[in-house]
Amino acid sequence: MSIKPKSLNVALVGTRFMGKAHSNAWSRVDSIFDSAIKPVLKVVCGRDQTSLDSFADRWGWRETSLDWRATIERDDIDIVDISLPTHMHAEVAIAAAKAGKHVFCEKPMSITVKQAQEMVAAVTSAGVVNYINHNYRRMPAVMLAKQLISEGKIGEIYHWRGTYQQDWIIDPNFPLTWHLQKEYAGSGPHGDLNSHSVDLAHFLVGEIDTLSCQTARFIDERPLPATYEAATFTAGTIGEQKGKVTVEDTSLMIVRFANGAMGSFEATRFAAGRKNHNSFEIYGSEGSVIFDLERPNELAFYSRNDEPHMQGFRTILATDPSHPYISKWWPPGHNIGYEHTFVHAVADFLDAISKGNQIHPNFSDGLKTIKVLETALKSSENNQHLKVIQ
Amino acid sequence: MSIKPKSLNVALVGTRFMGKAHSNAWSRVDSIFDSAIKPVLKVVCGRDQTSLDSFADRWGWRETSLDWRATIERDDIDIVDISLPTHMHAEVAIAAAKAGKHVFCEKPMSITVKQAQEMVAAVTSAGVVNYINHNYRRMPAVMLAKQLISEGKIGEIYHWRGTYQQDWIIDPNFPLTWHLQKEYAGSGPHGDLNSHSVDLAHFLVGEIDTLSCQTARFIDERPLPATYEAATFTAGTIGEQKGKVTVEDTSLMIVRFANGAMGSFEATRFAAGRKNHNSFEIYGSEGSVIFDLERPNELAFYSRNDEPHMQGFRTILATDPSHPYISKWWPPGHNIGYEHTFVHAVADFLDAISKGNQIHPNFSDGLKTIKVLETALKSSENNQHLKVIQ
Amino acid sequence: MSIKPKSLNVALVGTRFMGKAHSNAWSRVDSIFDSAIKPVLKVVCGRDQTSLDSFADRWGWRETSLDWRATIERDDIDIVDISLPTHMHAEVAIAAAKAGKHVFCEKPMSITVKQAQEMVAAVTSAGVVNYINHNYRRMPAVMLAKQLISEGKIGEIYHWRGTYQQDWIIDPNFPLTWHLQKEYAGSGPHGDLNSHSVDLAHFLVGEIDTLSCQTARFIDERPLPATYEAATFTAGTIGEQKGKVTVEDTSLMIVRFANGAMGSFEATRFAAGRKNHNSFEIYGSEGSVIFDLERPNELAFYSRNDEPHMQGFRTILATDPSHPYISKWWPPGHNIGYEHTFVHAVADFLDAISKGNQIHPNFSDGLKTIKVLETALKSSENNQHLKVIQ
Amino acid sequence: MSIKPKSLNVALVGTRFMGKAHSNAWSRVDSIFDSAIKPVLKVVCGRDQTSLDSFADRWGWRETSLDWRATIERDDIDIVDISLPTHMHAEVAIAAAKAGKHVFCEKPMSITVKQAQEMVAAVTSAGVVNYINHNYRRMPAVMLAKQLISEGKIGEIYHWRGTYQQDWIIDPNFPLTWHLQKEYAGSGPHGDLNSHSVDLAHFLVGEIDTLSCQTARFIDERPLPATYEAATFTAGTIGEQKGKVTVEDTSLMIVRFANGAMGSFEATRFAAGRKNHNSFEIYGSEGSVIFDLERPNELAFYSRNDEPHMQGFRTILATDPSHPYISKWWPPGHNIGYEHTFVHAVADFLDAISKGNQIHPNFSDGLKTIKVLETALKSSENNQHLKVIQ
Repeated sequence: MSIKPKSLNVALVGTRFMGKAHSNAWSRVDSIFDSAIKPVLKVVCGRDQTSLDSFADRWGWRETSLDWRATIERDDIDIVDISLPTHMHAEVAIAAAKAGKHVFCEKPMSITVKQAQEMVAAVTSAGVVNYINHNYRRMPAVMLAKQLISEGKIGEIYHWRGTYQQDWIIDPNFPLTWHLQKEYAGSGPHGDLNSHSVDLAHFLVGEIDTLSCQTARFIDERPLPATYEAATFTAGTIGEQKGKVTVEDTSLMIVRFANGAMGSFEATRFAAGRKNHNSFEIYGSEGSVIFDLERPNELAFYSRNDEPHMQGFRTILATDPSHPYISKWWPPGHNIGYEHTFVHAVADFLDAISKGNQIHPNFSDGLKTIKVLETALKSSENNQHLKVIQ
Repeated sequence: MSIKPKSLNVALVGTRFMGKAHSNAWSRVDSIFDSAIKPVLKVVCGRDQTSLDSFADRWGWRETSLDWRATIERDDIDIVDISLPTHMHAEVAIAAAKAGKHVFCEKPMSITVKQAQEMVAAVTSAGVVNYINHNYRRMPAVMLAKQLISEGKIGEIYHWRGTYQQDWIIDPNFPLTWHLQKEYAGSGPHGDLNSHSVDLAHFLVGEIDTLSCQTARFIDERPLPATYEAATFTAGTIGEQKGKVTVEDTSLMIVRFANGAMGSFEATRFAAGRKNHNSFEIYGSEGSVIFDLERPNELAFYSRNDEPHMQGFRTILATDPSHPYISKWWPPGHNIGYEHTFVHAVADFLDAISKGNQIHPNFSDGLKTIKVLETALKSSENNQHLKVIQ
Repeated sequence: MSIKPKSLNVALVGTRFMGKAHSNAWSRVDSIFDSAIKPVLKVVCGRDQTSLDSFADRWGWRETSLDWRATIERDDIDIVDISLPTHMHAEVAIAAAKAGKHVFCEKPMSITVKQAQEMVAAVTSAGVVNYINHNYRRMPAVMLAKQLISEGKIGEIYHWRGTYQQDWIIDPNFPLTWHLQKEYAGSGPHGDLNSHSVDLAHFLVGEIDTLSCQTARFIDERPLPATYEAATFTAGTIGEQKGKVTVEDTSLMIVRFANGAMGSFEATRFAAGRKNHNSFEIYGSEGSVIFDLERPNELAFYSRNDEPHMQGFRTILATDPSHPYISKWWPPGHNIGYEHTFVHAVADFLDAISKGNQIHPNFSDGLKTIKVLETALKSSENNQHLKVIQ
Repeated sequence: MSIKPKSLNVALVGTRFMGKAHSNAWSRVDSIFDSAIKPVLKVVCGRDQTSLDSFADRWGWRETSLDWRATIERDDIDIVDISLPTHMHAEVAIAAAKAGKHVFCEKPMSITVKQAQEMVAAVTSAGVVNYINHNYRRMPAVMLAKQLISEGKIGEIYHWRGTYQQDWIIDPNFPLTWHLQKEYAGSGPHGDLNSHSVDLAHFLVGEIDTLSCQTARFIDERPLPATYEAATFTAGTIGEQKGKVTVEDTSLMIVRFANGAMGSFEATRFAAGRKNHNSFEIYGSEGSVIFDLERPNELAFYSRNDEPHMQGFRTILATDPSHPYISKWWPPGHNIGYEHTFVHAVADFLDAISKGNQIHPNFSDGLKTIKVLETALKSSENNQHLKVIQ
């Protein structure tokens, strides 16, 4: 048998959508990538024993725990994975860092800049590997965009257009889940979706210098879930009572980047027909790239350096071994899916631990995004174009 | 022979790109549409006799004139078509109205709100039919979007996204033509392209209540055309001297419509690969529509009223006899082109004269657009979100 | 005034769909192209004086005639344009050639190879310019495909896929017009649509050596038009009586080209949702091109010579001055339509007359296509793969 | 803890591309689906102990074996998974059936009809669950096509177009791997790719009654792999010697279905730019569907029952909980990938065992496909249209 790589034990906190996607990645990475570190799905933490048992059984977590704090302090835990609602990220991340654990944290990083700053301080002080899971950087097509930019194929960047549209709450009877309450989510699509777009803009274009933002709410009250519990935030059947929506339904921004590029951002949950339309367009002096998460394996690329009669947006199917991550997967033309971004993130996270490197976006990168988002909300309140203080 | 319809004589002022497109429309409309009025291509006005002769010969104008003012005052002229650079619209339009002529005026309407107001006053006082040629309203696919909205298929509108991208000046050696000088053009893509988008937004969504705008210039100086003459503004070969670009290269806006919808606008001449990408997306409570002028015969439509497993954006090829204007043209699947919008505009303009009706967008509609654009430039200068005073 | 080019008088025979499209082209060409010859719309020939008058008035034909034979023999007629149902092409074309007129003939050339051979003999003997109007060669995007092939960008061709799909008779109550009767049309989509595809394959790939074909009819009887007259073949309201459909509803072919490429053809009027889907795909050792008439201004092009991570099908918007015919029309991104192919054909036809050249496809090219189609029908009857004898 | 489902032990024979994809499915199914049976990755069989060890370690197989025959006869093996080159399917499948094991067999089923018949006889006699892995039936978008057909949304089917294009051997220096040798592969894309298309046509349209086929080879000799071994068939670096390609490079078919529909098939490995373009189009009296594996989560659907001005091909993103299999995966808009088809196949296979049902395509279905393919090769040799004897 081959020599086993070093093993590290993971504790997962949170068992909903992201808990599932993260579990899939931790359990899958070893078969696909040749990491020097083998992650062990050691403990999953939650609030309800029955559902914890079922979750652990399904995903292969060896133990369960109702006490996340005790768990992350266990000596045999090396990595803490935070898959919780946003308002709990800071508390768990800071505790994990203080316990000396590497931290893999779901996005958006936090509700406030202050929380994010404390999180950065904690991981910096602890010297642990830290990561905010803006997973879409790690779609091969997005990494290919980065590569083309680095190769000079796009030239000086003039324009960024980031658009993240969904429609899952367009029905006025969609219930008031935690996502729609400022207390738990911080904001609506501005934090949830724009945080992805801003992270991608930072990654691909650069820092944002100034911005204008306007947010709006289209539906002010929604039915409370009949089975609603503060503890679970789960949407079940709806009840007769209504509650106040306290986050925005859409957020639009115009920005100037430090390098002179102009950008726009639009995030909404009210775009009928758009399911997970995380799209960006980048236009530069030499060429352009366009990405749309609803066709996640494609990157459109235009080059002004092609012969004039042969210029056009080409659709690159980013499933070639020459494309990032792909050589580990399937032959050309065999598409990968949404969940693979998580596998890539976990692989790179393990690689960073193994090599003693940083992985990006780390907590410092995440803080920059939170600062942009917070400045934007001020801009919307004050109706002014504002400078982002990084 | 059939009874000839009434004839009206047209005088065209201007012989460049728009002069050509308008001439095509005046000469074509009679073969395709059954107008009660037959336009006669009577006089074309310009500055250079040689090129005027050639133009008249090519397009069938019966006479030429170097004196537009004398021409439009002729008793035998019924319609004045203004195909000039923006800064000359007001003078010619007001003179034509005072002479009692119907006025067909190219967009954007004017450089300032003040000019536009004077133009409205002139045509109102004269009681003539007046039209600003935001021709894209009259693509069948755009009219179909209007129809679907009117039928309630889109429901309450939440979002407008207007994007008008070109790349024709992306080369820093593209010369300093009149389009790039504030004196002649008023503004850059903000006036040229956003005026189209704002007109479409007014047509399809409603009035704009408040807005934020940011403009930017990417290239400050450009070579003067070697053959440059103030009189012709023609770009020929470039010379060694450079001059200052005095308009913006891009303009981005966020708006709130009076009806609560949120909108964004982006206009640029620096989007590599976009040739005439006049695109809009409208998202509502019942469905969505998307249009892109680079695929001008198509409208994408999404309906939330389809059965759930059958919902998707459908690409309607707007070439069916059930679609606006199409029954006059070719069988289904036989696409029409850019110039056909002008034929439709001319047909509707003649129809308005014949019936004593208004045609839209008229000068009052044009004024509303100019007000939005002027407010936007103030917003960009002051870095504030401003109310549009209509 | 500029020196007037030489004028030639045209006689048009036929006033239906093609009569309209041809009239448009004859009346338009002079404004757009700088031909050495100016066509004069002299006489239009038909069967009904009232509709002839209306047609002449609409399109600018100076005279009308109920006697095509007398008309084409007039000394002052230089060009005969045949826009009739297929079964009448041979008689008119041969008479026109014998009268020494240049012949512009609508496709498909004829019902039988024998007719086509007689037509070739007549024009050859007369030495007149002759043309079969497979107009789609003259879409700029198709000409661009030809150019890329000529430049070696596609390399050795391995595959041709020609697909021409429509759905206009999918309703079983669509009436029994002349198109559905062998006597008048010769065949169904095999002649009507496959003739276009075979012409394009000859143009872009080369000669067809052997083939297999299968045709099928889906609906055997259809209502007779209530207002049906043998003389007009017009579909009006349907009556209670039914008649036999005597042509096929679809035709499928597999071919080997003389150069070793393999090809397929599919033509149908029963493809729900396809309106005028004349599409081809060509795959070669260096690259590929794809065209679809429903997006007529686009050509998809793939190059194996791009860097591996940058390879993809690029959508070339064939509206650049570097593209065939376009410099005569509008700026980049301003699409042209279906009818423009006819303008190009007329321009090239006049150019051939002026220069004493051939234009392609001429009658000899048309004959080759008819031979392929006739061999294919034999293949379908005999269930055998057959050699095409050119 | 929840009650554990019944466990069954799997033996996998073959460790290349398909061995990897199957291993992924066996190890993944339990986390996503709630099968009554839990598969245990018990033994993997191969020829080389070192690579077997590595494979077992990566994918979680508990044991390895160099003797597949002994392994499948072990009492503790319940399921045999055959992931071998085609020429070995029959021997292993028949042995597995005789040993009373359920058989999950990769496609194409066999090299000859005779082999396939013996395989059917073996599993029928043994009464075991048997499956041929035409996995593309189990893309949600393909299952959705089936559902729409079953619901009558397509109506009477007139046309099938199956196209499976790749380009992985277009370089003449691609080496002579086992896929290119008749002895091991039976045929080229005709068996490899057309087998998928024929299976889909059987599934979605019905049985094929008669057909014409033409195959062709474009490159007759290829370099032998320098490291070539009969035992491994692996392409490594190429050597100086060349060997004969003994399979076709492309195969084209025209078919008549028993229900009257007409169909075409094209399979090639020489379509530059097509990576895994497994595409089909189905046109019926009520509507149409189009699928393309390069955009695997999408199904295009056209309905003639939409209002006329609203008809168009709609792109259904088949990631809604209302779509087949999706409720087990991620929220709407979160695409799945190629490998998920295998997970679905394994889930349904386990379900069939659990319930004592058949799963389709089973060996009998596979035999039908092999009969079509074998008849087609005869048609190509004899240049005749032939009846398929099922």
